[in-house]
Amino acid sequence: MLRGIQVSPIAKTPKPPYYAVIFTSRRNDGDNGYGEMAGKIDELASVQPGFLGVDSVREDVGITVSYWADVDSVKAWKANAEHLEAQKKGREDWYSEFRVRISKVEREYGI
Amino acid sequence: MLRGIQVSPIAKTPKPPYYAVIFTSRRNDGDNGYGEMAGKIDELASVQPGFLGVDSVREDVGITVSYWADVDSVKAWKANAEHLEAQKKGREDWYSEFRVRISKVEREYGI
Repeated sequence: MLRGIQVSPIAKTPKPPYYAVIFTSRRNDGDNGYGEMAGKIDELASVQPGFLGVDSVREDVGITVSYWADVDSVKAWKANAEHLEAQKKGREDWYSEFRVRISKVEREYGI
Repeated sequence: MLRGIQVSPIAKTPKPPYYAVIFTSRRNDGDNGYGEMAGKIDELASVQPGFLGVDSVREDVGITVSYWADVDSVKAWKANAEHLEAQKKGREDWYSEFRVRISKVEREYGI
């Protein structure tokens, strides 16, 4: 499943500083409504104020990094009602393990 | 290829603040010495001062997030001689596109 690639091959972000939310996870067996909700959540995130982009890859472990203009836009997305519902499903049904890391990007380079 | 999983299922990191280096990339076709070098570079990173852990997943896009005690340990790893050689190979041979984002983790939670 190439969720990030549907949004952008590799996210293009503005000059730092901005925020990155690093979500690492391991899925439980079974879909439990994950597939349907995941697509909806990606769409919702993409229209949130301050959303800058997302990269997402899954093998056994999944890593999703979403980029945000500032910490307030990160907080507003965390508090979004439909996202709260997804977070509850995530804790209860979808993930055996996950970590969320909220970080401030200070420097960026690449080719 | 589950490089991150060989090191740890999901990296366990200390209480923030610490640093996360987010590396997103797309590979060129062909190995060009990547497979051999990648394993060596992971081993070298893991014994660098300040190294806290790494998560790494690749489909078409790859995301590797390495965690570091402070910005000085990030800089020291970037300047490591064998890593510099790998960075050169990365730019010239392995990656069609990559971004490196150096970020300071302010908050972490999970299950």
